[in-house]
Amino acid sequence: MKTPEELVRAASAWWTTEIIDIKPGEIAVRGYPIQDLIGKLSFPQMIWLMLRGDLPTPQQAALLEAALVSAVDHGPQAPSISISRMAVTCGAELNSAMASAINVLADIHGGAGQQCMEMYFDMDRRMKDGASLADAVNAGLDAWIAEHGKVIPGFGHRFHPIDPRAVKMIPMVEEAEKAGVVAGNFARIGRQVEATLEARKGKRIPMNIDGVTAVIYAELGFPAELGRGLFILSRSVGILAHAWEQYQQGGRIKGPMPPSIPYTYAGPARRKLPDSI
Amino acid sequence: MKTPEELVRAASAWWTTEIIDIKPGEIAVRGYPIQDLIGKLSFPQMIWLMLRGDLPTPQQAALLEAALVSAVDHGPQAPSISISRMAVTCGAELNSAMASAINVLADIHGGAGQQCMEMYFDMDRRMKDGASLADAVNAGLDAWIAEHGKVIPGFGHRFHPIDPRAVKMIPMVEEAEKAGVVAGNFARIGRQVEATLEARKGKRIPMNIDGVTAVIYAELGFPAELGRGLFILSRSVGILAHAWEQYQQGGRIKGPMPPSIPYTYAGPARRKLPDSI
Amino acid sequence: MKTPEELVRAASAWWTTEIIDIKPGEIAVRGYPIQDLIGKLSFPQMIWLMLRGDLPTPQQAALLEAALVSAVDHGPQAPSISISRMAVTCGAELNSAMASAINVLADIHGGAGQQCMEMYFDMDRRMKDGASLADAVNAGLDAWIAEHGKVIPGFGHRFHPIDPRAVKMIPMVEEAEKAGVVAGNFARIGRQVEATLEARKGKRIPMNIDGVTAVIYAELGFPAELGRGLFILSRSVGILAHAWEQYQQGGRIKGPMPPSIPYTYAGPARRKLPDSI
Amino acid sequence: MKTPEELVRAASAWWTTEIIDIKPGEIAVRGYPIQDLIGKLSFPQMIWLMLRGDLPTPQQAALLEAALVSAVDHGPQAPSISISRMAVTCGAELNSAMASAINVLADIHGGAGQQCMEMYFDMDRRMKDGASLADAVNAGLDAWIAEHGKVIPGFGHRFHPIDPRAVKMIPMVEEAEKAGVVAGNFARIGRQVEATLEARKGKRIPMNIDGVTAVIYAELGFPAELGRGLFILSRSVGILAHAWEQYQQGGRIKGPMPPSIPYTYAGPARRKLPDSI
Repeated sequence: MKTPEELVRAASAWWTTEIIDIKPGEIAVRGYPIQDLIGKLSFPQMIWLMLRGDLPTPQQAALLEAALVSAVDHGPQAPSISISRMAVTCGAELNSAMASAINVLADIHGGAGQQCMEMYFDMDRRMKDGASLADAVNAGLDAWIAEHGKVIPGFGHRFHPIDPRAVKMIPMVEEAEKAGVVAGNFARIGRQVEATLEARKGKRIPMNIDGVTAVIYAELGFPAELGRGLFILSRSVGILAHAWEQYQQGGRIKGPMPPSIPYTYAGPARRKLPDSI
Repeated sequence: MKTPEELVRAASAWWTTEIIDIKPGEIAVRGYPIQDLIGKLSFPQMIWLMLRGDLPTPQQAALLEAALVSAVDHGPQAPSISISRMAVTCGAELNSAMASAINVLADIHGGAGQQCMEMYFDMDRRMKDGASLADAVNAGLDAWIAEHGKVIPGFGHRFHPIDPRAVKMIPMVEEAEKAGVVAGNFARIGRQVEATLEARKGKRIPMNIDGVTAVIYAELGFPAELGRGLFILSRSVGILAHAWEQYQQGGRIKGPMPPSIPYTYAGPARRKLPDSI
Repeated sequence: MKTPEELVRAASAWWTTEIIDIKPGEIAVRGYPIQDLIGKLSFPQMIWLMLRGDLPTPQQAALLEAALVSAVDHGPQAPSISISRMAVTCGAELNSAMASAINVLADIHGGAGQQCMEMYFDMDRRMKDGASLADAVNAGLDAWIAEHGKVIPGFGHRFHPIDPRAVKMIPMVEEAEKAGVVAGNFARIGRQVEATLEARKGKRIPMNIDGVTAVIYAELGFPAELGRGLFILSRSVGILAHAWEQYQQGGRIKGPMPPSIPYTYAGPARRKLPDSI
Repeated sequence: MKTPEELVRAASAWWTTEIIDIKPGEIAVRGYPIQDLIGKLSFPQMIWLMLRGDLPTPQQAALLEAALVSAVDHGPQAPSISISRMAVTCGAELNSAMASAINVLADIHGGAGQQCMEMYFDMDRRMKDGASLADAVNAGLDAWIAEHGKVIPGFGHRFHPIDPRAVKMIPMVEEAEKAGVVAGNFARIGRQVEATLEARKGKRIPMNIDGVTAVIYAELGFPAELGRGLFILSRSVGILAHAWEQYQQGGRIKGPMPPSIPYTYAGPARRKLPDSI
């Protein structure tokens, strides 16, 4: 049986955080008074500070910013975007429309970057255990395929033969590597995955946006789960922009296709309920 | 009866957007090739471009950035933050935890900025219709109270006697006003609301973070609904950071209080089901 | 400054409910031990007990059950259903797919029943204030249209010239009226709304499922908000069934239309970023 | 390059369902006209029909109904329930409050029944492969623990020494077994799990509500995923009831604990931002 003092201590400890300290008239984030951060930190620097507790160098922040800018949208054929737009026509407020949409950035739709990071980390561990780059990537790919099937996260794209976002960002990572901003381990692994896949398939399966942002986030020291988290922060911008555009366009109870195109019913023909029910 | 050609046109037109154009190997946002934006635009500039279709000046972007940085978190006593943390302990992935949390940034918890902008816009319209600043604010406050009750969005705070975020940002707006970055109409309205409230109540009800970000977003030309949208983009950072911290802390099926503190049952005493059921 | 005892009492009182009492080895719902309810109450009776604290008669429960059965699904062109299906292909678990879908049962998509009940209640108040049935309905319709526009919730259907669910349920309500199960005030109001609309428009605007379930829920004594709540409990069945069917069909990142049908881009042509950015 | 006819066919086939057929004035569920089901099927029978396409016997429906009734609520210390209540005080409508709550019925909070079914199915497969009941359960438990750790889903409860819901339902399953309503394979497996756990631990780890509803759903032929689905349909009732009670109680931006109990900040002390940022 606990004393009231112990119960109050337990209640207070139930919600424990290292992120933010709030007292009347006072807010500090990771120890820094909020008024020192506003107008001083960029939004990506603030994101970094909130997630990790330390501050990036300007060069690290620039890489993070590029990755955040790259993934904001991929159009209304993406389920997250169409859901956001449909939600608005159902009467959902912007926060609700965004919630329904962000909720589907799940393992398959929003998880490729995270999965790619996990794959890179596995390959990196193999190198730390003594494997060469080529062997680590080979073994890592085999392990990935054995566990998850043939789709390699971060490589190839069902729509883009070459992903213009990756084309832009791969050299940015290489420059950061040369300038010593990042160590380059994951950039090398990413390039080797591409080379190995090409050797295996006889054709190029180029790195896509998920593959290159996974390189960037891994080089910057983020864990895989935050790879998805950062993608969500980025894609939320597109989800909001499309919700807002739909709001302005109007529409009520917008289905996935115009009502003039019927869906297909493939179930049983009309039947009578049995008497025994 | 529509022809197949008409049906395909209708289907294509069903999803119409001015935001993004995607072709194989090609992505353009508001007309700009994505590769021209990555590494060039800051994340706040990209947010502005996505939401509005044009580009901010660097000075406008700086104000937007300050506002985005200011609102990222207000600790685990905020329902959105505690929900995000509880969700993780239920087995929700980060995207789901964020969705449950963002979903409650509704009219009361996440809508104060939007409501404050609506109030400012109403006062601004009264000035455009010929009222003086003092009269417009007086009449606008009366109209607000008549429709929504005594809580004035953006002014006063149940926890902070003075909001340190507002203390920092109010002079930033005033500087932007002097430098001609913003016109200052809404800054003047905001200051007048504070003055009128003080005259009415006999004590200061200082502008809080919602009141000053509402000034900034209104000065920058955002509609009220996007005031909430921008707040969500900002608070999502805290929601993610706390979800991630909870994930690292562990815990299973975390309730709102430690189990040692019982909730209060205030319903009927034990009773027997009537026979007639 | 509160004492620890006061703080513990405040914490305990923070979560106060009349619904359920839980002690180790003991659960009571509205005062009834859970073991007395399981196997004894029907699911609709349990829903009634949970929401209201008392028990329906078997005849009342039968009406509620019919209404719950009637609204389970309206096919994949309904945004809630297509969202549930799309979510599954994004990797969402069933609970998440259901959440994204239920979330869009908002004012426009899921709120017609609630709105119709509010309209009926307003007409009923007018009768209690002395108006005749015809006058109360006339004035109630005028008031509704003045505030919400021309769409009358619960009457007419954009797809069904006559709603087969309403056709079935209207006589059920009338029988319940004759048998004295319900008082019939809202059934009369519903019929009068139909008559008045026909007189105004020169054509029949028949009561739809929302109009007749609104009659039933109002006759049974539910408040308008729970009209939406009960609709959600019913439609959740369809949302789950479609999520599960999609899960079995497979598919990855299913957009609203097949990728072979492009969406329409209506934004600016390709342009160059200005140098000043 | 597809012809317009082919595109329309592809669009129509994109949304294919065996659940519901809708034509103007006509709705059929699994082949049965909706008007034949309303007033005839119980809500649990309708749930079964929607999820599976066939109809249960009255005895099967009774078991399903008991399971649905049993799991509606477990009080405000459950994260799903407290989230629903907090959401309402943030201004969320009932559908949104329910969505945020249902969303956290994830693997840990809402998945125990599904996991227990998967464990039972694994044991059943071992018996079909020739193992004795005792061996199948032994091996199944070992396999479960090896993959998921020591928590056995469906057995033991952190709050109830004996779960009163299980106490009531276990004999119901046994009666159904004797009456030939169910085959009893999973009831036997469930009892054996309890016996094996007692032999291993030297104390009874009694079957809880998840364990017994898993027996029922497995006996009735539901797949494991729908075990979670049915639990969600049941718990949604409690989620709605608590949302509605909170709505009536009022409150604005209700956090997890009263504001008089501070949370614990465990991060770095106040510090100055480095000049290099």
